[in-house]
Amino acid sequence: MSEYEHIARTDTINPRVLVAKYEVRGAVTLRATELEDQLMEAKKKGVPSGLPFDYVTYCNIGNPQKLKQKPLTFIRQVCALMECPELMEKCPDAFAPDAIARAKRLLDAGFLTGTYSFSKGHALIRKDIAEFITARDGFPCDPDTIYCTDGASMAVRHMLDLLIRQEEKIGIMTPSPQYPLYASLLCLYNGCQVAYPLNEEAGWSLVPAELDRIWEEATAKGINCRALVIINPNNPTGQILSLECMQEVIRFCIKRRLVLFADEVYQENVYEDGTKFVSFRKVAHDMGDDVFKRLELASFHSVSKGFLGECGHRGGYVQLDNFLPEVHAMLYKMVSIGLCSNTVGQVVLDCMVNPPKPGEPSYELYEKEKNDIIQSLKRRAVKLSQAINSLEGFTCSKPSGSMYLFPSVVLPPKAIEAAKAAGVPPDTFYSLQLVEQTGICVVPGSGFGQREGTFHFRITFLPPEDQIDSVVESIKKFHANFVAKYK
Amino acid sequence: MSEYEHIARTDTINPRVLVAKYEVRGAVTLRATELEDQLMEAKKKGVPSGLPFDYVTYCNIGNPQKLKQKPLTFIRQVCALMECPELMEKCPDAFAPDAIARAKRLLDAGFLTGTYSFSKGHALIRKDIAEFITARDGFPCDPDTIYCTDGASMAVRHMLDLLIRQEEKIGIMTPSPQYPLYASLLCLYNGCQVAYPLNEEAGWSLVPAELDRIWEEATAKGINCRALVIINPNNPTGQILSLECMQEVIRFCIKRRLVLFADEVYQENVYEDGTKFVSFRKVAHDMGDDVFKRLELASFHSVSKGFLGECGHRGGYVQLDNFLPEVHAMLYKMVSIGLCSNTVGQVVLDCMVNPPKPGEPSYELYEKEKNDIIQSLKRRAVKLSQAINSLEGFTCSKPSGSMYLFPSVVLPPKAIEAAKAAGVPPDTFYSLQLVEQTGICVVPGSGFGQREGTFHFRITFLPPEDQIDSVVESIKKFHANFVAKYK
Repeated sequence: MSEYEHIARTDTINPRVLVAKYEVRGAVTLRATELEDQLMEAKKKGVPSGLPFDYVTYCNIGNPQKLKQKPLTFIRQVCALMECPELMEKCPDAFAPDAIARAKRLLDAGFLTGTYSFSKGHALIRKDIAEFITARDGFPCDPDTIYCTDGASMAVRHMLDLLIRQEEKIGIMTPSPQYPLYASLLCLYNGCQVAYPLNEEAGWSLVPAELDRIWEEATAKGINCRALVIINPNNPTGQILSLECMQEVIRFCIKRRLVLFADEVYQENVYEDGTKFVSFRKVAHDMGDDVFKRLELASFHSVSKGFLGECGHRGGYVQLDNFLPEVHAMLYKMVSIGLCSNTVGQVVLDCMVNPPKPGEPSYELYEKEKNDIIQSLKRRAVKLSQAINSLEGFTCSKPSGSMYLFPSVVLPPKAIEAAKAAGVPPDTFYSLQLVEQTGICVVPGSGFGQREGTFHFRITFLPPEDQIDSVVESIKKFHANFVAKYK
Repeated sequence: MSEYEHIARTDTINPRVLVAKYEVRGAVTLRATELEDQLMEAKKKGVPSGLPFDYVTYCNIGNPQKLKQKPLTFIRQVCALMECPELMEKCPDAFAPDAIARAKRLLDAGFLTGTYSFSKGHALIRKDIAEFITARDGFPCDPDTIYCTDGASMAVRHMLDLLIRQEEKIGIMTPSPQYPLYASLLCLYNGCQVAYPLNEEAGWSLVPAELDRIWEEATAKGINCRALVIINPNNPTGQILSLECMQEVIRFCIKRRLVLFADEVYQENVYEDGTKFVSFRKVAHDMGDDVFKRLELASFHSVSKGFLGECGHRGGYVQLDNFLPEVHAMLYKMVSIGLCSNTVGQVVLDCMVNPPKPGEPSYELYEKEKNDIIQSLKRRAVKLSQAINSLEGFTCSKPSGSMYLFPSVVLPPKAIEAAKAAGVPPDTFYSLQLVEQTGICVVPGSGFGQREGTFHFRITFLPPEDQIDSVVESIKKFHANFVAKYK
């Protein structure tokens, strides 16, 4: 084909696609996938792989079931029954009676996995979500303010697409470090990423006074800030906001006229004793109607995180408070263009927001499975963070929530030079060698944003408990060799 | 809230969202949903609904299972087993042995519904799709050229986002009438819709000479046409392209340097005797390597249409021929930002492209279910089109494929005036009254594009066979009253 000049080339396609970055599935992950293929190929042929490890450990992404977390029995029974309702008759004993009842309830409401649902999600699912939010926050939520989407990522995409205009410089304030979904979508939609720093020295806390400073700087540059993104519990840092900080953030959004994006997909991933997740919606409401009604709030949630870890099902939603009906009409149109979110994701959402209740047949098993997962996540978070902290050259703040650690690592100057020579950021250089030598796949900190001259990586604490020791051991050995090599 | 000036308002949000239109789920469908709610509410309370019909008939959208089409047994068994693998042990007799074998095959390849798959879809699924395409077209397809997406809609979205640039006027040539996904996305991405007419008088055929004329006109206006969209079999017209026409289209794309978007989601929906679906990929390949290698071709397929009708599962893919590796790298990044398409949709895709083979336990039932659906669709297409054609004021071309009829209807001048007074297009005016009086929901032709002064609506022929007569009777009665009213 070399003699033929292609139509789609890097100089003819959308230039914003070229510059967008999404390191969670970037160069390091692609290399991990290649290495895994090599291992599988060798295994199939019964020959040595030639690699110094037997399997790839995907610590790059919060994908718990890939790392052996079991799905919750009740949820999967309901999904199976929704796909094959005749199983209720054929083998009722294979299912808990309340799983059957749940599937029947959905079927009776006209929900079928094979049909497009209403664009915003089926009415019953949105009603159940609204009741979950009402109970969680202690004040009512209207089902019409909820949009079910293919994962929370799609909800974020729609909301950014709604707010960003080409006609002016629209700024969206995002934390730094941040989950790269925001930076990549801002790049695609041509919005301005207005990064506010999280303070690593104070456990990655958010300093509200900084928000004002950053807003003023951006505004002085002609950027019209339209929204503020808060990830709580935080990805990648694991930090959880204090109540006071949340109140200040709300006051800031009202003062500066910013829509608040509350990315609360890790709301069940809270590990610190005495710390409890509180939604921005509840905090704003508790500040009184005068405050609440002035806050345009978009809250995101997902089945991918928490103790469910049902990533592949792509179930998520956004719930909007205090948005105008005419803006809802536009968002309805946007979700309609994709017809609807996938129905099985909606079923999983329904189970998440409406789990078995005390006294119901599945209740005890559900609670046991849930608590086992949460307790195990907590143990792994503590174990991995302590171990990483004990390594020379690493600093890792205490993990309060989410699924990640974001340790900083001191890299030798010669390694930094070698990275420069290789044309990659130093942390990518480090992470690539880590995966080559240990099979452990992490995401370089440069993919999230970090202070100039500091280096980090994001690592999930999702490997099974019996593997955590070997992960730590591998990192320790690798790091010692790396430092020795570039001394 | 009235005293508070909102942040998100129609004058502050993305203006392209305001102007985008998606009539398939527009005003008429929203009204149908309200009417259905009213019926359900009345039924729940055991009181008369006050409406002149007992149920809403959703003929607005190709959503077969909503209109009582049964899912294929094999596919749903595999889905249920993937959600709940322990059912293989618990109640093996409830499943066909090959459904169990299929689920095992996916599980053995590391496919789990609860995990994010590789961004482009799991390797085994893409391998199966590639083998299906290879067998269909008689020449090899590389799995790496395939991207699984949440429905084909999402694949179209990514491809348009990839090609459209804000830096210049990028034109995408689309049929008129067209499935409004294209117009709405072009509007959102700020591309130029360059409409080429289909010739209603000749059964909605595509006139290749027209393509050149339209291209020249657009080019003269400074529009840089970058792609041509062909929907074959066509939505909304039901037309199927001749081999000669496809060859001319391919030559046109090469001559004018256009990426060809082959929207082939209706490839199994072919009803005319002696007519067979042939993919653009096969036609281009049969024209010789010199032609084929110069064609940048994106082919779209979906589990939502055909005889599966698995709309809610949102399974689709795009397969790309002759695209540069660096463009593939960009598309990989785009799908990675959403992490992956939903896994159950990928399972359904896998069943679609790799159905039970002769001799396998599920083969006969699968073939019977498939043929029953296709034969029934064919009978309904013929019956509905003949009936509509027999009504005074209606003209409907012969349905060759897809799931729709697109009849033209003569509206009385007074009705056109009344519509103008009501501020809605005449065909919307007509369709709104139709749903109010009969419960039959169709999509006004203005949502697809139609020649000035002509009026159409799109109606699916998906209602169950025993309802087709009553649908026709209702339309006939409604139309007579409508004409009498505006005489």
